[in-house]
Amino acid sequence: MPNIRKLLRASPNLKVADEDAARKPLSSGDKAADKQLVEDLARQISDLQDILYAQCKHKVLVVLQGMDTSGKDGTVRGVFGRIDPLGVRSVPFKAPTEPEKSRDFLWRIHQQVPAVGELVIFNRSHYEDVLITRVHDWIDEAECKRRLAHIRDFERMLSETGTVIVKCFLHISAKEQKARLEERIADPNKHWKLQPDDLKERKFWDDYQKQYETAIRATDADHAPWYVVPADSKTHRNLAIANIVLETLQDLKLAYPPANPAYADLKVD
Amino acid sequence: MPNIRKLLRASPNLKVADEDAARKPLSSGDKAADKQLVEDLARQISDLQDILYAQCKHKVLVVLQGMDTSGKDGTVRGVFGRIDPLGVRSVPFKAPTEPEKSRDFLWRIHQQVPAVGELVIFNRSHYEDVLITRVHDWIDEAECKRRLAHIRDFERMLSETGTVIVKCFLHISAKEQKARLEERIADPNKHWKLQPDDLKERKFWDDYQKQYETAIRATDADHAPWYVVPADSKTHRNLAIANIVLETLQDLKLAYPPANPAYADLKVD
Repeated sequence: MPNIRKLLRASPNLKVADEDAARKPLSSGDKAADKQLVEDLARQISDLQDILYAQCKHKVLVVLQGMDTSGKDGTVRGVFGRIDPLGVRSVPFKAPTEPEKSRDFLWRIHQQVPAVGELVIFNRSHYEDVLITRVHDWIDEAECKRRLAHIRDFERMLSETGTVIVKCFLHISAKEQKARLEERIADPNKHWKLQPDDLKERKFWDDYQKQYETAIRATDADHAPWYVVPADSKTHRNLAIANIVLETLQDLKLAYPPANPAYADLKVD
Repeated sequence: MPNIRKLLRASPNLKVADEDAARKPLSSGDKAADKQLVEDLARQISDLQDILYAQCKHKVLVVLQGMDTSGKDGTVRGVFGRIDPLGVRSVPFKAPTEPEKSRDFLWRIHQQVPAVGELVIFNRSHYEDVLITRVHDWIDEAECKRRLAHIRDFERMLSETGTVIVKCFLHISAKEQKARLEERIADPNKHWKLQPDDLKERKFWDDYQKQYETAIRATDADHAPWYVVPADSKTHRNLAIANIVLETLQDLKLAYPPANPAYADLKVD
């Protein structure tokens, strides 16, 4: 499967409504084999992350965005769950707190960007500030445009100061979301993941899709690419994101820092 | 003295070498009277800051930059020293730490920007990242240009998200710096302010002036103006900065939140 990133990269003319969330372009057709492949890829990502951490040179930021139940948490576990927590940091962004609201919307985001040697996963992100906020008219179109420009500037700055950025839109269908919400309702152990408001947000489905389309088109760039990940299948979603991340890490030509010849003669008393 | 900001605003063709650091365009000619005026202005600033804090609407950022001994600490004390510490925050930026160096140069800066209701003073700032770094060739000209663009984007974003920005270049002459350094050397109680390296940096005087000129010209904007403050006289420096800050606060048309008529009838048991 050469260059999966090209295959899933958001098109400049992206129409979210036309994107089939159920397609599985990367699947072998055998679910067990696909799952095994995800495992293999997750281990390769873990191996490369070990070098990333040792080399302490690159910074990697993975942004996960998607509707409720689209599988952001599942991706963190399934794709990044093999990495030593030393070098990986998953940052969930919830509704902003009062101190966060009393600064610009990028304030809390900037604090969490990766240091050298780190791979950071944003579970939701600054994109919420142009999605839910715009869908509910908490900000007008002019403010939304300004924020999209701020995001472009911010991500370009991060890129120019050495951060590799990968942005994944976990694209599910309204029908699949319904099934997943019903599953959560049926399982008391999953009630903690459920907010009654989640059910209300479904009414704004088309607005959300439209706003994702606007945000993705406005902020896709070669240094901060968006990938549209068909996510109705959890296995395929992980397969896609694992491949995207692995290809990105492979591009970095990571290498352990050079060995120190003098160390070979060291004796430990 | 109408609109002191116009008088001291950096010109687009600023030539730092041509700026007279000893001039005192705001002085009454009577030093005692000037000092008294600084006191009065500092109190007016304090009164307005109290409203700023109560209103919890505006954010104000004052950036102080200047060569060693140019009077940044003295300005914090002399101009902002009357404000209740509840609503004012002075943030000194020293050489970046390892965690700070492992992110982009704006990371530590962004964390310290004012919240609504706050007046924040940056004692040195992100401008160090295009001054000392460029003077000593730690970054090349292309990187310096990129950083200046990052600063422009960052300050525009801060402005568009509600932060009022004031930037003061405390301009002293090489001769005045010599006198102040000698004073520090002569007074054991001032040795804590002295680094032997400060004396070495004097050799790069002209480079620093040139780099200040480049940075100021590249980042002056109506939403983030630079003021060139003649600072050989400490009293005049305070007089100038107090006036600039006061005029800026007056523009905000600050007002205490409306009284609640129902409160008038409240009884305290």
